[in-house]
Amino acid sequence: VADTVPDGTLIASLHEAALDLADEARAVIGAALAAGVRGERKEDGTFVTPADRDVEQRLRARIVERFPDHGVLGEEFPPLHPEADYQWILDPVDGTEELVAGIPTFGSIIGLHHRGRPLLGVLDFPALDFRVHAARGRGCFRDGARLHIAAADDRPLRVALSARANFTRYLDDGVIFDRLTRALPNHRIYRSCLAQALAATGSVDVVVEWHDRLWDLAAVEILITEAGGEYRVVRDQQAGGGRILSAVFGRRDAVARACALID
Amino acid sequence: VADTVPDGTLIASLHEAALDLADEARAVIGAALAAGVRGERKEDGTFVTPADRDVEQRLRARIVERFPDHGVLGEEFPPLHPEADYQWILDPVDGTEELVAGIPTFGSIIGLHHRGRPLLGVLDFPALDFRVHAARGRGCFRDGARLHIAAADDRPLRVALSARANFTRYLDDGVIFDRLTRALPNHRIYRSCLAQALAATGSVDVVVEWHDRLWDLAAVEILITEAGGEYRVVRDQQAGGGRILSAVFGRRDAVARACALID
Repeated sequence: VADTVPDGTLIASLHEAALDLADEARAVIGAALAAGVRGERKEDGTFVTPADRDVEQRLRARIVERFPDHGVLGEEFPPLHPEADYQWILDPVDGTEELVAGIPTFGSIIGLHHRGRPLLGVLDFPALDFRVHAARGRGCFRDGARLHIAAADDRPLRVALSARANFTRYLDDGVIFDRLTRALPNHRIYRSCLAQALAATGSVDVVVEWHDRLWDLAAVEILITEAGGEYRVVRDQQAGGGRILSAVFGRRDAVARACALID
Repeated sequence: VADTVPDGTLIASLHEAALDLADEARAVIGAALAAGVRGERKEDGTFVTPADRDVEQRLRARIVERFPDHGVLGEEFPPLHPEADYQWILDPVDGTEELVAGIPTFGSIIGLHHRGRPLLGVLDFPALDFRVHAARGRGCFRDGARLHIAAADDRPLRVALSARANFTRYLDDGVIFDRLTRALPNHRIYRSCLAQALAATGSVDVVVEWHDRLWDLAAVEILITEAGGEYRVVRDQQAGGGRILSAVFGRRDAVARACALID
């Protein structure tokens, strides 16, 4: 089978498929919330719930059904077709700790990459009834409304950061957290997916995420670039048994200011 | 008129009145959101919106109607009857920056104090459809469900902090922020009212709020103590033309651990 170049028609249909997947994820999470969610510890000390695994299994099943030659990379199960051109990258529940604790800021991350470049992304927040999504060449949207990140602004920067624990996991970059919190003191610290969605809507000006896994960043690059903002990978390293990435993204002038604080 | 000692019957009726006020606040904010909210800068650089003033005016009008001899202290207007035994303390929109930016974590803070001691408190989040409330001797509730903060837990602490900007405003306590973020690295930074509500539900174990005004903390003490947690004022100072307070609250063992990091 010849590789299908993702033209506009194909991207539109994949975009619809990704939104269907987000609907499925929301249905599974909604059922889990209604039944009551209990967390269990993974070996690395982080939480997992049956909902994480149920969402990822449901999405994998749907992808295999509709796109049998596509690859799938997710947080909870081994990769499927890792050599395929099209790779769905999933974090079924980003913020499992929040899901278990009843904090509504958790969300699902769904990305599709083609030959290593992001093609589309969805961030969906079941408990906030909030979704942002984007596809290459089609734009970035909050529900049905097109999003445009402003070119520049002279208000004090609104900043979202990873917790200091992220900066010091795998490799100790705590000094960068300290420098950022001193120079950009009006910061918030949310989970990844919420910070990413707020950057896409222009609600925060810049986000600095540190020491993430690929699935944490599966959707954000296409969201930010399709909204007219900038996405920069500032670290791309091997540590803790895998690839870890650090990224700065949001409004262009704000990204430049934050990056100037990072060597 | 002799002072009315707040017995159970009176507290129950004031509690209902406070919930009515929260309904009114939610209605005004909902109408503002539907019409589109625009922010303007105050002299101190913070945001205010017509919604902040509209909510406070509506609540003041209702309080004057129902409790003409009660005092009212709010963020946006001068105090009313500052000598009265009963004082309603209002922050109509905590998180105006979030309201303007479309981040759903803003909320209304409503407290009633009797002779300087908190009698009841409500935190209401219109965009999250989430409310916690408490009254002296009656318990703390999320909507209708009674809340109980656990006695202790050996999981890694879930911590919420004020942004570094709070620690350095009025007086420079940045060193305390740095110490807390190093020793308790799994932190989040939300707005006051959300952090307070999450402490009451047990979703975070401990909150450290720094350099707040009285209205920021109007509801939280009664919420936390009625839920079985601990509330400690760790700084009570005069600065920036008024009284500023710093407080640590949540699960008892977690409060002790956080306080040990503060001199």
